[in-house]
Amino acid sequence: MTKRTSTVSCDLTISLDGYAAGHNQSEQRPFGDDGGDGWGSELHAWYENKEENRAEIDRMTRAKAYIMGRNMFGPVRGEWDRPWTGWWGDNPPYHGPVFVLTHFPRDPQPMDGGTTFYFVTDGIESAFRQARAAAGDDGAISIHGGATTVNQYLAAGLITEIRLHYVPLTLGAGTRLFDGVPPLKLEQVSSRAATGVTHVTYRVLS
Amino acid sequence: MTKRTSTVSCDLTISLDGYAAGHNQSEQRPFGDDGGDGWGSELHAWYENKEENRAEIDRMTRAKAYIMGRNMFGPVRGEWDRPWTGWWGDNPPYHGPVFVLTHFPRDPQPMDGGTTFYFVTDGIESAFRQARAAAGDDGAISIHGGATTVNQYLAAGLITEIRLHYVPLTLGAGTRLFDGVPPLKLEQVSSRAATGVTHVTYRVLS
Ligand SMILES: NC(=O)c1ccc[n+]([C@@H]2O[C@H](COP(=O)([O-])OP(=O)(O)OC[C@H]3O[C@@H](n4cnc5c(N)ncnc54)[C@H](OP(=O)(O)O)[C@@H]3O)[C@@H](O)[C@H]2O)c1
Ligand SMILES: NC(=O)c1ccc[n+]([C@@H]2O[C@H](COP(=O)([O-])OP(=O)(O)OC[C@H]3O[C@@H](n4cnc5c(N)ncnc54)[C@H](OP(=O)(O)O)[C@@H]3O)[C@@H](O)[C@H]2O)c1
Repeated sequence: MTKRTSTVSCDLTISLDGYAAGHNQSEQRPFGDDGGDGWGSELHAWYENKEENRAEIDRMTRAKAYIMGRNMFGPVRGEWDRPWTGWWGDNPPYHGPVFVLTHFPRDPQPMDGGTTFYFVTDGIESAFRQARAAAGDDGAISIHGGATTVNQYLAAGLITEIRLHYVPLTLGAGTRLFDGVPPLKLEQVSSRAATGVTHVTYRVLS
Repeated sequence: MTKRTSTVSCDLTISLDGYAAGHNQSEQRPFGDDGGDGWGSELHAWYENKEENRAEIDRMTRAKAYIMGRNMFGPVRGEWDRPWTGWWGDNPPYHGPVFVLTHFPRDPQPMDGGTTFYFVTDGIESAFRQARAAAGDDGAISIHGGATTVNQYLAAGLITEIRLHYVPLTLGAGTRLFDGVPPLKLEQVSSRAATGVTHVTYRVLS
């Protein structure tokens, strides 16, 4: 057996107190509660600054396969009782398979541009096997969010690279990166300051 | 009244999951539990890299007055039942007054080089007034740690500048920066990568 060296990354914007989103996500407030003052939009303000953050933004959608939680996929909860094909329009930026973790079965959802959303109801290992099969042994996999999904893959030891975008605010509540994840040793691979955000990439050592 | 513009800073090395120290600090393990593998020393490894981190290290001891918790001051708990004059030898790097928050009264402890440790038993506002009186209206005050102390001053709205040194590990337990602090809006003032650490400074906006 050769050691698998392809990257399994996660990539999250987080508040300084470690939250990737507030509670009570809805279609109107995709990042959840904001304490009434729009923190959710501030969380992703850097992302609108496309020129300055080109490298970090482009890197987010360069994987061969993606895994995300159904809360990142959209605001529908429980049974799939209304049409929903994601936040990203008819031609999502993934251009490949996206495996959506959920407890509620649903047929695959093909989109323009090569993206297909597959709904996986038998757990994180199954989604990972499917993503690996799609990406090939050398293809990068992105554990795309939110924190609930990322934390499960961190705890399972399947993530090799953590990309964080620290934004200048704290939230006090929400879904928190690293919750329930055993202590990790990391290596700082790169760190770059941009306006109102610090981009840091870590390799997971153990 | 003119608006007070002097800096009230805190300056903490933190794990990526937001901890400034582990639980169960002792004289042998000043940073507390380490899960058996020395994370405490790793937390401060960057600090040994004096040349590369000269600016950040020097800045830590440039205030006119300091406030710290008695756990940062040392490992003695409860009554002051044994001699203890801090971790910093006969000539501590403060060269000015250091107000130590504690519930256990003790006489002031003068040291070489102008440092005196004063033990304050009537709360954070009292310690702040004393530090302000010592520093003067224009003098910088450092809320020097640990997180339990810093969080109280953050919650009270008294800190104007937050300096963080992000180190590449997570801890999973300990005293956590921002615990119990209402949401904050900040401005990223500076951000600098060094070997194995990212130094970031934020101004508190609200
Ligand atoms: N800050 C960032 O960079 C960033 C990135 C991505 C997303 N977000 C935000 O994060 C929020 C969503 O994150 P989140 O942590 O709340 O949730 P999430 O990880 O996106 O989704 C969690 C949901 O996925 C399903 N799920 C997760 N693991 C599963 C498993 N092992 N088996 C079966 N189903 C599973 C469950 O849904 P069901 O049981 O209902 O099926 C669960 O409630 C959104 O507000 C989104 O906008 C932020
Ligand atoms: N990562 C970093 O940059 C950094 C910086 C500084 C320290 N540290 C580490 O952090 C740890 C200490 O931090 P910590 O958060 O555990 O504790 P701390 O803030 O240093 O001290 C807490 C103690 O101070 C006293 N105290 C605090 N607030 C008080 C108040 N309002 N009134 C009266 N007494 C008060 C209490 O002691 P009593 O009730 O016993 O008197 C309390 O248990 C140590 O391991 C230290 O090495 C790390």
